[in-house]
Amino acid sequence: MSILVVGTVAFDHIKTPFGERENILAGAATYFSISASYFTDVSIVGVVGEDFTAEHEEVFNKHGVDITNLERKAGGRTFRWAGEYGYDFNTRTTLDTQLNVFADFKPVVPESKKNTPYLFLGNAHPSLQRDVQAQSNAKLVAMDTMDFWIHGTPSELRETLKNIDLLIINDEEARQLAEDSNVIRSAKKIMAMGPKRLIVKRGEYGATLFGEDSFFAMPGYPQENVVDPTGAGDTFAGGVMGYLSATGGGFDEDSLRKAMIYGSVMASFNIESFGSDRLSQLTKEEINDRYRQFKKITYFDATEHEF
Amino acid sequence: MSILVVGTVAFDHIKTPFGERENILAGAATYFSISASYFTDVSIVGVVGEDFTAEHEEVFNKHGVDITNLERKAGGRTFRWAGEYGYDFNTRTTLDTQLNVFADFKPVVPESKKNTPYLFLGNAHPSLQRDVQAQSNAKLVAMDTMDFWIHGTPSELRETLKNIDLLIINDEEARQLAEDSNVIRSAKKIMAMGPKRLIVKRGEYGATLFGEDSFFAMPGYPQENVVDPTGAGDTFAGGVMGYLSATGGGFDEDSLRKAMIYGSVMASFNIESFGSDRLSQLTKEEINDRYRQFKKITYFDATEHEF
Repeated sequence: MSILVVGTVAFDHIKTPFGERENILAGAATYFSISASYFTDVSIVGVVGEDFTAEHEEVFNKHGVDITNLERKAGGRTFRWAGEYGYDFNTRTTLDTQLNVFADFKPVVPESKKNTPYLFLGNAHPSLQRDVQAQSNAKLVAMDTMDFWIHGTPSELRETLKNIDLLIINDEEARQLAEDSNVIRSAKKIMAMGPKRLIVKRGEYGATLFGEDSFFAMPGYPQENVVDPTGAGDTFAGGVMGYLSATGGGFDEDSLRKAMIYGSVMASFNIESFGSDRLSQLTKEEINDRYRQFKKITYFDATEHEF
Repeated sequence: MSILVVGTVAFDHIKTPFGERENILAGAATYFSISASYFTDVSIVGVVGEDFTAEHEEVFNKHGVDITNLERKAGGRTFRWAGEYGYDFNTRTTLDTQLNVFADFKPVVPESKKNTPYLFLGNAHPSLQRDVQAQSNAKLVAMDTMDFWIHGTPSELRETLKNIDLLIINDEEARQLAEDSNVIRSAKKIMAMGPKRLIVKRGEYGATLFGEDSFFAMPGYPQENVVDPTGAGDTFAGGVMGYLSATGGGFDEDSLRKAMIYGSVMASFNIESFGSDRLSQLTKEEINDRYRQFKKITYFDATEHEF
C-alpha cells in the first residue's frame, strides 16, 4: 500500500565538528520519502522554489518517489535551514531558518491521492497538519511535531493529536508535551490526548513504543561512523511507515516492532553521510543484513535462572 | 561460586525533587552485596566507623552477606556523601563528601578470602584497587571507576586496567576515559587498555556490552516510579556478578548477556525507594518476573522482510 507524505523539502547548511556542507537537499519529506521508497510507493505534497532543479528532481525520481504534487513556486526560494552540531552530536544549534516558499504553504491533497491509505504529516503548524488530514481518507495517519509547536501552539496541537493513529517524537518533546520529567509517565499522558500509539525516539539510545496494552523497547544501532545526524528522525519514520505499508498489515504490535527495527536500520545508514548520500544508495541486501545484525546484538536467552 | 567485594559502606544524605532522606545506609559495597546476595554468597572487605550499629549489621546479615572483614574503626566515623538530583534524575550534584575512616583505608584480603573466585573492585583509588587484586587469586576480576580518577590519576588507572577482566562504567566515563565523543569508538579504545570486556551503563537508556568479537545492546527497564537512583550502578554490577558466579559459567557471551539483564532487573527495583529499602525486600519470583518482562518488551520477530 502506498504512502502520502506532507512536509518540507529543504536545503540545509550543516556544520559538524568534522566537516561542513551547504545546499544539502534535505527536509522531512525528502528523508521520509527516500527511506520509505525502499518498501513501497511514496508521493510528496510540498512546495519548493526555483532553486530546486532537475538535478534535485532526479534524487526523487531515482527512487520512484512521486513529486507531481511538489509545487514549484515561480520566483520563490526553497525552505532553508542551517544548524551546527556539538562534539558528541547530542546537541544541535539552529543557526538560521528561512521559511521562504513554505511560509504561506497551503497543502492541497489532490483527488488522486485522497485515498492513499497511509499518511505521514511531517513537522509543521498543527492546524496545517489537521487541514491535510481533513482532506485525506487515509486509514493510518502518523505525525511528527517539535518543541516550537508544543510551546507555541499548544491548543492547536492538542486538537490535532485527537485523531492521530501514531505520534513519532523524541524523548525531550515527549517530556515537554506531557509536562512530566519521566518518559514512561509522559507516554501515558500523551496517549490520553488521542494518539493510539506513540513512538519515542531516543537518538543513539534507540526508541520505545507505547500503546494501550503494549510496550516495546529497543536500543540504538551501534554506529561509530556518525557524519551528520540530520534527518535521522524522518528517515526512521519513513522506515516505520514504509515497512507497515509494505506488509499491509498495519497496526498490530508485531508489525510495529519490526517496523521500528527497520526504521532504525534506515536511520543508522542515513547518519553515515551528509544529506541523503548514503540513504540514497542502499541495497535491499544491506538493509536486511543490518536487520539481522539488530537481532543478533539484542538477543538474549529467555530461560530464567533457577535460584 | 562466591564473590568478594571491596568498596565503600557509607551513609548518604539524598535530596530529590520529591523528597529528602538522611543517614541512608549506602555505598558501593552495600548496594553491590545485597544485589548479588540473591544469587550467591558475598563477603565485603571495607571499613566503617562507630556510627555503624547493630541495626546496620542486620541489613547485611538478613541477606547472608559476610561482613566479618568489614573493619570497625574505633572512634571513627563512616564515609558520608550528600547529593541532590535534578528534576528528571539525569543530573546529580555532589553537595558534600566526607571520606572519614575511608581516608586511610588499606584493604587487607584475609587468607580465607584469597581464593574467592569472583572479585569486584568498587570505585576507589586505582592503586588501592590494584593492591587488592594483587592480594587475590580470583579467576574473574571486575571493577568500576569514576571521572575523579580518570582525570586525577590517569596513569595509575591505566596500570590498573591492564589486568581487568570486566570494566563496568557509565557512558560519560567511557567517553572521558577514551577521550572520544563516540561511545562505540571509545569502547574499542578502552579494551585496548586491557579489560577483556566492557559494560557501558547508560542509565534509563540501558546498557551495552563490548568484547573483542561481541556486542550486545539492551534498553533500560521502563520505570515510571523513580524515587532515588543512587546505587543503581552498583546494584547493576551486583546482579551481573551475582548471576555470573551463580551459574559458575563465567565469562561467555550468553552468560554475560543474561547477567546484564539480571543486573538491570536488580537496578530497576533499587531505584524504586531510598537506599536499599526495596532492593532488600525482593523475592526470587519478583526478580524472575521482571526478567520475563524484559524478554517480552524487547522481543521482535527475526524474519526479514521480503522486498
